[in-house]
Amino acid sequence: MASAIGRPRAQGPSASGLGTERDILEAAARLFCEEGFGSTSTYKIAAAARISQATMYHYFAGKHDILLALLLETVRPSVAFADQLATRREAADVRLWALCAYDARLLLSGAHNTGALYLLPEVADERFAQFAAERTRLFEVYRDLVAEVLGVDAAAAHGRASLVFGLVESVILRRRTDRPGELAGAEEAVADAALRVLGVRDARVERVRHAWTE
Amino acid sequence: MASAIGRPRAQGPSASGLGTERDILEAAARLFCEEGFGSTSTYKIAAAARISQATMYHYFAGKHDILLALLLETVRPSVAFADQLATRREAADVRLWALCAYDARLLLSGAHNTGALYLLPEVADERFAQFAAERTRLFEVYRDLVAEVLGVDAAAAHGRASLVFGLVESVILRRRTDRPGELAGAEEAVADAALRVLGVRDARVERVRHAWTE
Repeated sequence: MASAIGRPRAQGPSASGLGTERDILEAAARLFCEEGFGSTSTYKIAAAARISQATMYHYFAGKHDILLALLLETVRPSVAFADQLATRREAADVRLWALCAYDARLLLSGAHNTGALYLLPEVADERFAQFAAERTRLFEVYRDLVAEVLGVDAAAAHGRASLVFGLVESVILRRRTDRPGELAGAEEAVADAALRVLGVRDARVERVRHAWTE
Repeated sequence: MASAIGRPRAQGPSASGLGTERDILEAAARLFCEEGFGSTSTYKIAAAARISQATMYHYFAGKHDILLALLLETVRPSVAFADQLATRREAADVRLWALCAYDARLLLSGAHNTGALYLLPEVADERFAQFAAERTRLFEVYRDLVAEVLGVDAAAAHGRASLVFGLVESVILRRRTDRPGELAGAEEAVADAALRVLGVRDARVERVRHAWTE
């Protein structure tokens, strides 16, 4: 097949207009989420992205490599947002609210529920250590913000931070079964609920939400 | 192979002593959670349960049937517990706390994280309609208890109930990455957090926990 196109297409036109790498990631996300990781071959991914397998291997070493890229896209933007937040002067509860809303929105975005791929058994593998490290880093930002809101040290904040982190990631589970309309505004509801888990009162939650969204 | 044992072993000794059906479910749970549903054949399941494939087919029509049985085990006990709760006189927040703690404990129990199987693409299939129906029924119990706690009607409670349900199910995601010690007592922490999401104050949360656990 590769011989028919001469050499791997690396710069040619892309099916979606977003570039060949993006086409591969979108095709793989759809197949992994709709048919399963185990049932998806690199052959199927290349066919769905309308490229040759040789072209696919020009971008990714294999399907584990594609899965890693998809997983990193579910945490890296939130880590970058958290880094930006660290330079801001808002109170800790305002920054935590903003991070929860951003992160939940990220997990709710995109055509496919790639957060669901966290639960693949393969992700426990050493090949995904980079993803595990980024997700741990993101958790640590949550934990430090929770510690600041509660006025305790990082170790004492661990349990509550796990609840907040779980609440944000629970949109992955909801995306699987809720009707689409039911998830409208879910990121703000999740962020409000995160503060309530920390014992922040309703009146303050209202002020925090307006402080950020105005 | 079946001929070597004469006929399918239906009543013979079980590897675990818990019965052949249980052996099949445990073997399949381990394989689905550790190697993936797509990568697991009925042949592998039978070998892991130390039975012939013919014996396996005596109990289950195939691996989808086994997956359905495993999924039902993650919701049916909570539905049964909810039915019992309905006959009790405790306040709504006490009953909701008890349901959250029971359900989270169920999802944290067992050798394998079978709740993670909710996210398999296959589960969207019509074959799993019975599981979807039981899970919806469980959600409705949550929603009605949340409505009672908030003093609103069922429709108005939907959003908060989704947050509470998501918080409980988030133990599935945490079980994947938290160290085992970090999940000790998680079911009570989740139940406390569920009430806080509904705006229940700390002092009342304390009383509710003691009302149930004493």
